[in-house]
Amino acid sequence: MQITIRKIAKELNLAVSTVSKALRDSHEISEETKQKIFALARKLDYVPNAYAGSLKNRKTGNIAVVVPEVADSFFSDAINGIEAVAQQKGYHVMVYLTHECAERENSILRNLRNGRVDGILVSVSSGTISDSAVHADVAKHVPLIFFDRVCQDIDTPKIITDDFDSGYKATHHLIEKGCKEIVFLSFTRDLSIVDQRMAGFKQAIIDQRMEVRDDHIVVCSNNETRNREILYKLFTRDRKVDGVVSSVEKLAMQVYSVCGKTGLSIPRDVRVIAFSNLPIASLLAPSLSTITQPAVEMGKAAATLLFTSLEKKVDLKRESYTLPSTLYERDSTR
Amino acid sequence: MQITIRKIAKELNLAVSTVSKALRDSHEISEETKQKIFALARKLDYVPNAYAGSLKNRKTGNIAVVVPEVADSFFSDAINGIEAVAQQKGYHVMVYLTHECAERENSILRNLRNGRVDGILVSVSSGTISDSAVHADVAKHVPLIFFDRVCQDIDTPKIITDDFDSGYKATHHLIEKGCKEIVFLSFTRDLSIVDQRMAGFKQAIIDQRMEVRDDHIVVCSNNETRNREILYKLFTRDRKVDGVVSSVEKLAMQVYSVCGKTGLSIPRDVRVIAFSNLPIASLLAPSLSTITQPAVEMGKAAATLLFTSLEKKVDLKRESYTLPSTLYERDSTR
Repeated sequence: MQITIRKIAKELNLAVSTVSKALRDSHEISEETKQKIFALARKLDYVPNAYAGSLKNRKTGNIAVVVPEVADSFFSDAINGIEAVAQQKGYHVMVYLTHECAERENSILRNLRNGRVDGILVSVSSGTISDSAVHADVAKHVPLIFFDRVCQDIDTPKIITDDFDSGYKATHHLIEKGCKEIVFLSFTRDLSIVDQRMAGFKQAIIDQRMEVRDDHIVVCSNNETRNREILYKLFTRDRKVDGVVSSVEKLAMQVYSVCGKTGLSIPRDVRVIAFSNLPIASLLAPSLSTITQPAVEMGKAAATLLFTSLEKKVDLKRESYTLPSTLYERDSTR
Repeated sequence: MQITIRKIAKELNLAVSTVSKALRDSHEISEETKQKIFALARKLDYVPNAYAGSLKNRKTGNIAVVVPEVADSFFSDAINGIEAVAQQKGYHVMVYLTHECAERENSILRNLRNGRVDGILVSVSSGTISDSAVHADVAKHVPLIFFDRVCQDIDTPKIITDDFDSGYKATHHLIEKGCKEIVFLSFTRDLSIVDQRMAGFKQAIIDQRMEVRDDHIVVCSNNETRNREILYKLFTRDRKVDGVVSSVEKLAMQVYSVCGKTGLSIPRDVRVIAFSNLPIASLLAPSLSTITQPAVEMGKAAATLLFTSLEKKVDLKRESYTLPSTLYERDSTR
């Protein structure tokens, strides 16, 4: 049985318009009345009619989260942060995966443009360009916020971390431990976050009056077999690599795997530090030193910003919020 | 600019109805014609109008996946399997998380009942009962398939693994290694999969003429601090536990952590085997023996079954498909 707004209104002896506004969390209705209405709506299992709702007042009760993948601890943590806030607001969260494919991301975003959701939180795929026309267009129709991986040139809020500083800190940490030949690993050169982390990496090396060569920046692929070859060459070439800053969790795991198979010891032969939110970093052999982003907090910040804008009916502004990451020293760099 | 079916029809000199049918992948249209239409649709960035589409012919281009969480390698793998199939069919996948909350799951499902998606793939939360009225009702309105964690009493397909056999194999493996006091860890007693794995656990012990006591079945909570206390007691009680079958990946990691902090050695003092799809199981200290479910294949099987039913317009039948899991012996049980 579909419980209608009318029934809730009748039961509480309120006007239908009052209930309708309260369920849309309108500021016109007092907190006390809202709470009464929310309580009864929950008790009666009230489900807003998705289509009627979205067509009439563009309030769908849904937000979309668009991320490259979920098999990465940063994204699963960030999603949990978003969900914690959305749950409080009585919203459902739909998660879409792009698998690092810009075309797929564009297709998903276009599909979300026509009122299916009240807002979109995006962390872009590695192929998405910084002035993507699709993202710019969708952001004009639906409130859109970037987190972590952003389109720099689009006028909408961005929740990011201090990627330059983190790249610098990670690299400086390896230099302090005595590393002379440090490489920076990534999947791509195009992402805003990789760009910043890499700039921090270079600056840390230059500040020590050491040289940054082209072959210190290593761009891996999504193909694990190919990566193993690339990594194997790094650790066996003339100028042997003795330090790795991995901008991606998965690549650090591939470094572990290659070192294990070639008899190289971490940290004796190669020290490794990675951008990672892996909850079991301390259980790895050896435990992994990490730059850990405040993923849950970033998700919460992005969602809170979105809901504040929806509730106050104010447009989102072009603003950046930078949250600090933390360096955890563990055995992989001791 | 929204490219309409009409434009595609005009450009290819075809009837509008032909294009419309082809885009719905109708069997009435030849493969050759479909390919031509798909190619142009892609080129023109054709986006189906979600609302119009869903109201007229109940074809939304979306399927929903409802799972407890994504910070678990089984679910992230299964989602990737589902996405691989959906991508081929030109469908978008919306992932919803229940966070093991039955009420939240019910709310999500009710929200999906009214034509928002063409099909739903569900792995239920630990609180969901086997004859859930909400799930039964939604399954009457929208094609619904269970995978891994199922509602046994609901008439719809189920993609599962050989949980009894796997529970038996894992336990037998520990007995062979000399374990005398083996416990079975889970979050709940209610889930179909836990029930089966536990039955296999008990049978393996009984078959060795050993005794199964009540305190061999340990139900942990979602609270990590509380779990640490429970686990610490297990490893320090009079009848010290020397073998653990963990039905949940996360609990195995908590066993590792507690053993590390109390100076117990895995596998010397405690042998551990877990149901897990963790890609880095072999990089843990010590590497973790696992029962690994064919997660990607299960996701693919569930999605394929759904799309076959949608394409052939046949109703889903009450059927179970059982895929086998694999035991990987690593250092945690050596």
